[in-house]
Amino acid sequence: MKQFINTKETLVTEAIDGTLRTAEGRLARLDGYPHIKVVVRADWDKSKVALVSGGGSGHEPSHAGFVGQGMLTAAVCGDVFASPSVDAVLAGILAVTGKAGCLLIVKNYTGDRLNFGLAAERARAFGLKVNMVIVDDDVALPDLPQARGVAGTLFVHKIAGALADQGAVLDAVTRAAQRVIAGVVSIGMSLDTCTVPGSPKEDRIEPGKAELGLGIHGEAGIEQVDFRSAREAMEMVVDRLAPNIAPGPHAALLNNLGGATPLEMAVLAEELVTSRIGEQIRWLVGPAPLMTSLDMQGFSVSLLPVGKADEAALSAPVAPWAWPGCLAVGSVAVLPLPDGLAPIQPLPSKNAATRAFIERCCRILIAAETDLNALDAKSGDGDTGSTLASAARALIDALDRLPLADLTQLYRAIGQELSQTMGGSSGVLLAIFFAAAGDASASGEEALGALKSGLDRVQQVGGARPGDRTMIDALFPALEALQAGLPAAAEAARAGADLTATITRAKAGRASYIAASKLAGHNDPGAEAVARLFEKLAEG
Amino acid sequence: MKQFINTKETLVTEAIDGTLRTAEGRLARLDGYPHIKVVVRADWDKSKVALVSGGGSGHEPSHAGFVGQGMLTAAVCGDVFASPSVDAVLAGILAVTGKAGCLLIVKNYTGDRLNFGLAAERARAFGLKVNMVIVDDDVALPDLPQARGVAGTLFVHKIAGALADQGAVLDAVTRAAQRVIAGVVSIGMSLDTCTVPGSPKEDRIEPGKAELGLGIHGEAGIEQVDFRSAREAMEMVVDRLAPNIAPGPHAALLNNLGGATPLEMAVLAEELVTSRIGEQIRWLVGPAPLMTSLDMQGFSVSLLPVGKADEAALSAPVAPWAWPGCLAVGSVAVLPLPDGLAPIQPLPSKNAATRAFIERCCRILIAAETDLNALDAKSGDGDTGSTLASAARALIDALDRLPLADLTQLYRAIGQELSQTMGGSSGVLLAIFFAAAGDASASGEEALGALKSGLDRVQQVGGARPGDRTMIDALFPALEALQAGLPAAAEAARAGADLTATITRAKAGRASYIAASKLAGHNDPGAEAVARLFEKLAEG
Repeated sequence: MKQFINTKETLVTEAIDGTLRTAEGRLARLDGYPHIKVVVRADWDKSKVALVSGGGSGHEPSHAGFVGQGMLTAAVCGDVFASPSVDAVLAGILAVTGKAGCLLIVKNYTGDRLNFGLAAERARAFGLKVNMVIVDDDVALPDLPQARGVAGTLFVHKIAGALADQGAVLDAVTRAAQRVIAGVVSIGMSLDTCTVPGSPKEDRIEPGKAELGLGIHGEAGIEQVDFRSAREAMEMVVDRLAPNIAPGPHAALLNNLGGATPLEMAVLAEELVTSRIGEQIRWLVGPAPLMTSLDMQGFSVSLLPVGKADEAALSAPVAPWAWPGCLAVGSVAVLPLPDGLAPIQPLPSKNAATRAFIERCCRILIAAETDLNALDAKSGDGDTGSTLASAARALIDALDRLPLADLTQLYRAIGQELSQTMGGSSGVLLAIFFAAAGDASASGEEALGALKSGLDRVQQVGGARPGDRTMIDALFPALEALQAGLPAAAEAARAGADLTATITRAKAGRASYIAASKLAGHNDPGAEAVARLFEKLAEG
Repeated sequence: MKQFINTKETLVTEAIDGTLRTAEGRLARLDGYPHIKVVVRADWDKSKVALVSGGGSGHEPSHAGFVGQGMLTAAVCGDVFASPSVDAVLAGILAVTGKAGCLLIVKNYTGDRLNFGLAAERARAFGLKVNMVIVDDDVALPDLPQARGVAGTLFVHKIAGALADQGAVLDAVTRAAQRVIAGVVSIGMSLDTCTVPGSPKEDRIEPGKAELGLGIHGEAGIEQVDFRSAREAMEMVVDRLAPNIAPGPHAALLNNLGGATPLEMAVLAEELVTSRIGEQIRWLVGPAPLMTSLDMQGFSVSLLPVGKADEAALSAPVAPWAWPGCLAVGSVAVLPLPDGLAPIQPLPSKNAATRAFIERCCRILIAAETDLNALDAKSGDGDTGSTLASAARALIDALDRLPLADLTQLYRAIGQELSQTMGGSSGVLLAIFFAAAGDASASGEEALGALKSGLDRVQQVGGARPGDRTMIDALFPALEALQAGLPAAAEAARAGADLTATITRAKAGRASYIAASKLAGHNDPGAEAVARLFEKLAEG
């Protein structure tokens, strides 16, 4: 499998160093590479109870990501999915433990229990007060007295961490941790296995199936279940958790096992809080990657019954960024849509000359339909003529409801009509052209200046400039020349349109995807349309 | 492809609602589902410049995840990889824009430019001040004047957001955004394509290959390159970025495109800051998922030249949790290993009786080697006898250096010897037994009480209780009976050991993995060893 690593052997140490680069003095590591991989708080004076956790790597941000004020004091990191050595754990304990003592928070795996356990004994021989708690929150295997420790461990880190930070003594911190462990239950579900660095990926889970009750080391789940939707998946998870919780308020922790997308996790959050136990979920941690299993496309839910003291401990701010906060679950706040989405209908007004002018422009474009389509067919899909003609016909139909006597309102109304009747990018751009011209007119610009402002805006929004083989190549010079009269504008538009036949490297719009050989010698159909319009208008 | 979604059509609205469940009054959405998906700050009084961004979904936490004080005021969310409608953008603008005006931050895609652009025009028709900037930070295609907008957009959100939060006027916020856009450059690399909900996954990238310069919508990269390691991958990315940056300090943003693990991202962070441009990288945002492309196993690097004002704006605290902070890049802080890892060598001392007793115990275990191996072979791998005999031989060899005259030190020293000479879980557990007995002895417990304390600790660490078919089944009753003399202890140990032949459901240790039929009728070899020891000792 491809992964962004250098070697399996240096993976964990390089990752720890990468993390510590931005620790800004808050974190350090012990000088024990490669065997001793311990991250410790650098802002630690040993005056309070130290919390030490750890285990195999591959569960990031656990455990090093949770070292910092309010959570862990040290994290002892093994290789991927491998328990750290007794010496490594002892080094972590000795590095951070003062007179207040130290609590080891260990997930229930034999290797971790033994190595942390023996390290604790060795530390005690130095006269240090060391307690140890074993987290066994996984309810996947209800008959096994030795349940695994999974993401519920984060509740222990957080609540014990808050107490320790407040200066509680070791026994109080230990009792709190034991109480959390007694209450927390977790279960996981995944759609795929994880990819262990250096090993081929196991294709264990069939299409259409998910695994329920799997561990965080790639262990198979207790069963494969049919997978149909996020809702059914969450229902299955809730079915396993519900028998294990008492009535009353709970905090839930929604953990991304690594490879689920934020979109999926947010859908799962919605399913969890609207599930049949949703009413009991008053607080939510996540969704976030908290106790991952490398790249596993799965999630786990942990539930903890909480009283007031737990709420305070869970909500207390902490230094580690990886802790996403414990937030109150509520309803979705919905605000009414603002006024103004329905288009402003202008008051119709009459102006015979303006009406005649608009109709004439429209007729010119309608007459050019076939020619423009033929031109477009040489480099595109042959519909430029029809698109413009359709819009022109619609505009003629709209003449009776246009505010013909008020130029500002008229520009805006034409923009509105075009945005509703003309498809594609060109429709949006022409709508922007007239709407912006209306704005400029409202700001006091006269008619021509307003149109130039409209073109400025089209260039800004559309990103095309003169020379990019678009209708701007004709429209820009035409508007520049229009002060000198229609014939001058027509001449400029024609020159600009004809120049587009030499532009074979389009920089914007659809033509930018067309081969140069197909563009050479043919005018851009949009520019040609503008040239035709001005030429016909100049004819009188 | 399996994904934790319900339907493609409801994916984005369900995900937004899931996110808003824990907004705690800080966020709301507009009442425009399904077409208008707009997340807004609920704690917003329109007194300052509003920042509105958005685009297609599938880039989470962009954009809704960055709505909050100090960053965006509103996020307009389209469907996955699809631009939101003009109406949706307009709704977002109207919902949050007051007299101070609004800045639209738009990534350079035609759909977004046009829809945000036309919405801006319609908002301006209401007299609102609306500016728009286009982010085009991708340097993958150096010849294309219309570069894509990718993760560098986050720098715009953050710096413009900090200025707006400080009360800067619209033009100042806009100028700052434009300056960031002019300076920021980005490029991405991926090992795999992304999985678009409802579509089959495209297997475009061959084994051993990576794509360089790919977009955030599954577009193919500009080239496929050989992939060998994280280091080479980062070197290729740096090679593309380096020609586009000036000398001087930069902030880097290391973006997880969705499917890279935290471990991989941390390794990439280390490679980035130690690369040939590492000296220029004074600040780092991430590694974190910031502008993802669904589940793409890739990353992108964005670089921004920064002065003092930018540093302040980038470092200012913000409400959205998804912003990982902008942290100073430094060296890895390394602390010396603590004293005490080297085992304390006890001062040897003499006690003839103790020496004889220990040697006798050892000889008993050595003599039982063959029997115990045979017993273990019936339910295990047949090495219990050899494991214990080896440890016993090593202990006899160590007699000259043991502190035989000091029971506390002797217990500890035996624990130390066993942890060094006896393999497997049983070695660790016996080491814990004697080490804990030494602790208890140091606390004033007499010899037998200390051994009971040791056994308590073994049960806590190992997780086995009497009845779990381990050596505890003999050792526990033996120690309980020992006060009444060795014969009583031997009798208790034998009864306990024989009882293990009836325990076919082991709850701890290796036997918990063995079929009941293989266990029935055979004593646990560890318990048998204990019984033999006490029986032989009782014989005289």
